[in-house]
Amino acid sequence: MLNRSQSLSALLAPNSVALVGASDDVTRIGGRPLRYLREAGFKGAVYPVNPKRETVQGLTAYASVGALPEAPDVAILAVPAAATVQAVRECAGRNVKAAIVFSAGFAETDEAGRALQNEMTGIARESGMRLLGPNCLGVFNSSIGFYGTFSAMLDTGLVKPGPIGIVSQSGAYGSHLMYLARLRGLGMNHLVTTGNECDINVAEALRWMVEQPDINVVMAYAEGIKDRDTFIEALEVARERRKAIVFMKVGRSEVGAHAVSSHTAALAGSDAVFDSVFRQYGVWRAQTTAEQIDIAAACSRGVYPKSNSLGIFTMSGGFGIQMADDAETAGLDVKPMPEKAQEELKAMLPYASPRNPVDATAQAVTDLPLMTSFISAMLEKGDYGFFAGIFGSGPASPTFSGKLRQALETAAAASRDTIMALTMTAPDEIVRAYEDKGFIVAQDGSALMKTLGAMVHFRNSFERAAGGKRELAPGEHVEFSGGALSEREAKPILAQAGVTFPKEALIKAGDDAGAVAASVGFPVVLKISSPDIAHKTEIGGVIVGVKDEAAAREAAATIFARAAEKRPDARIEGILVSPMISDGVEIIAGVVSDPAFGPVVMFGLGGVFVEVLKDVTFRAAPFDVAEAHRMIREIRGFAMLEGVRGAAPSDVDALAEMLSALSRFAAANADTIESIDLNPVRVMEKGKGLVALDALIVPASGRS
Amino acid sequence: MLNRSQSLSALLAPNSVALVGASDDVTRIGGRPLRYLREAGFKGAVYPVNPKRETVQGLTAYASVGALPEAPDVAILAVPAAATVQAVRECAGRNVKAAIVFSAGFAETDEAGRALQNEMTGIARESGMRLLGPNCLGVFNSSIGFYGTFSAMLDTGLVKPGPIGIVSQSGAYGSHLMYLARLRGLGMNHLVTTGNECDINVAEALRWMVEQPDINVVMAYAEGIKDRDTFIEALEVARERRKAIVFMKVGRSEVGAHAVSSHTAALAGSDAVFDSVFRQYGVWRAQTTAEQIDIAAACSRGVYPKSNSLGIFTMSGGFGIQMADDAETAGLDVKPMPEKAQEELKAMLPYASPRNPVDATAQAVTDLPLMTSFISAMLEKGDYGFFAGIFGSGPASPTFSGKLRQALETAAAASRDTIMALTMTAPDEIVRAYEDKGFIVAQDGSALMKTLGAMVHFRNSFERAAGGKRELAPGEHVEFSGGALSEREAKPILAQAGVTFPKEALIKAGDDAGAVAASVGFPVVLKISSPDIAHKTEIGGVIVGVKDEAAAREAAATIFARAAEKRPDARIEGILVSPMISDGVEIIAGVVSDPAFGPVVMFGLGGVFVEVLKDVTFRAAPFDVAEAHRMIREIRGFAMLEGVRGAAPSDVDALAEMLSALSRFAAANADTIESIDLNPVRVMEKGKGLVALDALIVPASGRS
Repeated sequence: MLNRSQSLSALLAPNSVALVGASDDVTRIGGRPLRYLREAGFKGAVYPVNPKRETVQGLTAYASVGALPEAPDVAILAVPAAATVQAVRECAGRNVKAAIVFSAGFAETDEAGRALQNEMTGIARESGMRLLGPNCLGVFNSSIGFYGTFSAMLDTGLVKPGPIGIVSQSGAYGSHLMYLARLRGLGMNHLVTTGNECDINVAEALRWMVEQPDINVVMAYAEGIKDRDTFIEALEVARERRKAIVFMKVGRSEVGAHAVSSHTAALAGSDAVFDSVFRQYGVWRAQTTAEQIDIAAACSRGVYPKSNSLGIFTMSGGFGIQMADDAETAGLDVKPMPEKAQEELKAMLPYASPRNPVDATAQAVTDLPLMTSFISAMLEKGDYGFFAGIFGSGPASPTFSGKLRQALETAAAASRDTIMALTMTAPDEIVRAYEDKGFIVAQDGSALMKTLGAMVHFRNSFERAAGGKRELAPGEHVEFSGGALSEREAKPILAQAGVTFPKEALIKAGDDAGAVAASVGFPVVLKISSPDIAHKTEIGGVIVGVKDEAAAREAAATIFARAAEKRPDARIEGILVSPMISDGVEIIAGVVSDPAFGPVVMFGLGGVFVEVLKDVTFRAAPFDVAEAHRMIREIRGFAMLEGVRGAAPSDVDALAEMLSALSRFAAANADTIESIDLNPVRVMEKGKGLVALDALIVPASGRS
Repeated sequence: MLNRSQSLSALLAPNSVALVGASDDVTRIGGRPLRYLREAGFKGAVYPVNPKRETVQGLTAYASVGALPEAPDVAILAVPAAATVQAVRECAGRNVKAAIVFSAGFAETDEAGRALQNEMTGIARESGMRLLGPNCLGVFNSSIGFYGTFSAMLDTGLVKPGPIGIVSQSGAYGSHLMYLARLRGLGMNHLVTTGNECDINVAEALRWMVEQPDINVVMAYAEGIKDRDTFIEALEVARERRKAIVFMKVGRSEVGAHAVSSHTAALAGSDAVFDSVFRQYGVWRAQTTAEQIDIAAACSRGVYPKSNSLGIFTMSGGFGIQMADDAETAGLDVKPMPEKAQEELKAMLPYASPRNPVDATAQAVTDLPLMTSFISAMLEKGDYGFFAGIFGSGPASPTFSGKLRQALETAAAASRDTIMALTMTAPDEIVRAYEDKGFIVAQDGSALMKTLGAMVHFRNSFERAAGGKRELAPGEHVEFSGGALSEREAKPILAQAGVTFPKEALIKAGDDAGAVAASVGFPVVLKISSPDIAHKTEIGGVIVGVKDEAAAREAAATIFARAAEKRPDARIEGILVSPMISDGVEIIAGVVSDPAFGPVVMFGLGGVFVEVLKDVTFRAAPFDVAEAHRMIREIRGFAMLEGVRGAAPSDVDALAEMLSALSRFAAANADTIESIDLNPVRVMEKGKGLVALDALIVPASGRS
């Protein structure tokens, strides 16, 4: 049997292809792939299978898969759902390596369809044959002319090879992306649409794609993922190999999420967790399809900026200001030109604004040498990561456009390591001429700034590729005997894992509660301790602000009495005595088991931040301390930890250590733990650590 | 003399035009306007002025403005800065009604330029002649073929008349907008670019534009505004007359704001205040130029939706989910189809998702009658404000496009009051054919959702046009004798204006502090009261948590002693006794004097909300209670006032009354008050009002 990557190579770079249900009609599902294969001049063997014909589209047809002269690498099944199972069986029998199932009418439809899909999947799995689909639009590999798709978008032309790949659950979305990217003149080596994902899924396709040396960017689309480990591995490999992933993840809205659940079998997982995982691994989550293509186009050369600084050249103050606004939003640094260079520009043109945006005024419109001097100065002396020139509709005139391009190339020669970008509104052929020379061209300045911001994002992500790896030493594995753990049981386990708790003591029945409390140090809080009482306050099992021994005795008696009265059946371990701590900044941390991503660490500030603002963030476990630092800085209220109104900065290092430790523990115990709550945790001032004041572990039900 | 609106009509709808500096060269500043006037067939008299020629571009030329056969309504001055003052003088002498000054080299350049501009402005003002510019690109009124502009964008074609107007400080931005809108096939009656605004400014041009009956939308651009009253009046008139204003306000970033201040003479004002004023008056602030044009195009028919509900039709689940996500972000309600209608659709096509998004699956691609049935059902039974159909690149085929349009029109006939929108990627002429039938067409679904959201925004704003009017009865006017006011002086003034304060008392030297404090009710806070001591805590002049008479006596003695020691020169009124109040939700309110908008009321939640999250919002004063309610609901932490974790809802009505009262007071005293601080204010639970615990009024320096 082939390993997984090899089997995808059989699917995407086959030597031979069978088309089951081949048709002479090039507008039909069984006709289109053959037409495309022929038009593209696919070099491998192509075997139409159709029992009713001698030839199909001029090629010798075969009556069955069994009758083929060789076992093809790939079989494209262009037959109705009802006939698919039989076709899959024949292919499996013939040792076909992979089959593409176009037909709908499977798990996405009804229970009968789901049964059909399961049967087909079972047959394939048994033989080791890989399946793509069903209910998918297939694949292409334009670099070898292989088209295993019936996308009608190819009627108007095949696809130019190039460093972009597309991976999409939705066939319609994937082929629309391809269509739009083709309109933009972009080259794309690969498209994979995965449909119902009975076998091959988006994660695996992505994993294969990011390993292809000739791919620099992947545009992806998904509603959810099925295979967390392969997915995260794909993201890790992409980051290491400097492949940009630009992702359209849908289902973030309530209606959208509802539609996802009715549309796919995939467990969607929480959209907020997706968002966090994307940030964790440096994936760019596109907000719009237009943005997805803009960014893919800009990253397709695999060249990234040396810094996030941007020099803006304009001939109109207003445009410059607008771009500066958008640049700031995109995280770019519109740093001023060096003072001396500014003086030189002022000397050249007294009306100019030489700072940045550099405004050469309308004077430069008619004085190209002046413009070239200005731009050269910016590139030679500004030390910018990016140059962005605002040219409006000027380049729409072919004569001016050519001269301008010449001038820009001359100026660009001064600085080979500044990425050159332009805004212009001009016919496609003029835009292409600039793009061919390596310029990033956009019509809209705001879109351009977003694109440049994404390039900085990728650069930063690639640079920290070594961090955040999952080969972290996992924490100790813990088994549970079943049922929820009391606070007193949970704390030692989490302390072992790396969480700090305050000194505590247990008052057992008959103990002198005053003496035990005194050993902790007043003021204290007393809490009933029982594995059977999860909600301690509901039975009056918590008394705070206990100030001396007498009060402790009274409080303990009260709690024991309440527990005996309200929960006579509960196993009472005693009463936990903890110090009252109100120093530091209150945070909450925890672990949840996400349907898509498994154990995920959550972090947020306590109080109104979590209750009113839902200001929390997530990371897939495990992750390292550096990643924890990034996580902490994502919340809106982060300034609280830096110290507000003269408060001392908090011990963010200790917090990051704790979150990372918690993530390792969660990863090591993904099979036995459903969730962990540390709420509240108080982060002390820098150097003084933190203390978790409460802890809860809920074991995975039925799995412990 | 003409009133202001008439004088702008002379500028924008003249009967006669002189062009000073007229040139035969149609590529020169002095040649272009004449060329455009001739090409457009302007019906009024056109007088080229050029002492060196008999004729210019075939028209009789005159040696000077004085030599013209009549006084023209408008003079276009296409002469260099140095010659402009003389030209303005001649025009003023001849009773020309308005002059357009193209030339740069005035206030935007240096002090000499500023002096030149002032001289020219003085001459015009004395004679009653209006001036546009200098440093501007002029105007056009395509409906009468009047082109008083040298924009090179018109070289490639004039502008089709239509219900869109453009008002822009930046000539380059304004003419680029015109260029892009023309590419989109949009008709535009007017363009006004105001440049340095030595006389006519954006506010006045906007004011004129929104009064034109044939204008439905104005696209505006500004870096700042100079005339608050006219500006707000323009926004009010626009709202009353249902004119959509789509505004590009630049300078929101630090670099951008810096560039604005060096680029224009205008006082920019706070960008956050601009943002709030736009919300207050229902202006849509465009984030990108593309968005500005999309929204203007959609609103150009002046038709708005009956509700914010949206029915999404798709043939691909993925696209539907993506659009549902974007719809939610845009504030649209993707409400489900009625249950019965869903059942009928399921009966028609078992594989369909009939809820909303309504997914007719790929089946509908080839079965147009099925698609029509689905869409008809949505329009007849869904009661949607909007219908959005996702068609991808299907309509790129002219034959399919025509059939689809027919099908959509048939379906649309079922519901005349649903606004029809489509996404498609197709050649311009196909898109135009849909637009001509009243469809809103976009390539990108995300952009379309933003556009529809903006239409809902305008609808809501127009519906509340009666509210928020500035004809509110102003509060009492107050004069100050100068200097800052003590808390004790400020409170009665603000109480008179409508702010509630707790019962307080003053301990004077020699009083029994215990008895005075007891009259307020313990616990109390004691604060030194002196107009000379602004920062009371700095001298130890505040003691909180005073619980009984003895403590009050001790505290009062301490405070008197500290004041005597640390500020022996201060006038001491006594010690203010206030009740300690910690109930309710802490908010802050105040008034600031914005450089652009004058008195502006600020509101936010106290504590971390203002300190860490800067969660505050603004309104230009005055405003009514309904507007105050909207203001309150804008802050991110609004849930705090609704009651979190079981807390009772706060008295938001009382808060809204107070903010509106504060705004009236601020407006009535704009000339004497620099700022007001109410911090903290505690809003009690519903029905129990609020109390302001501290107050500060800073009179306007040098104006009181």
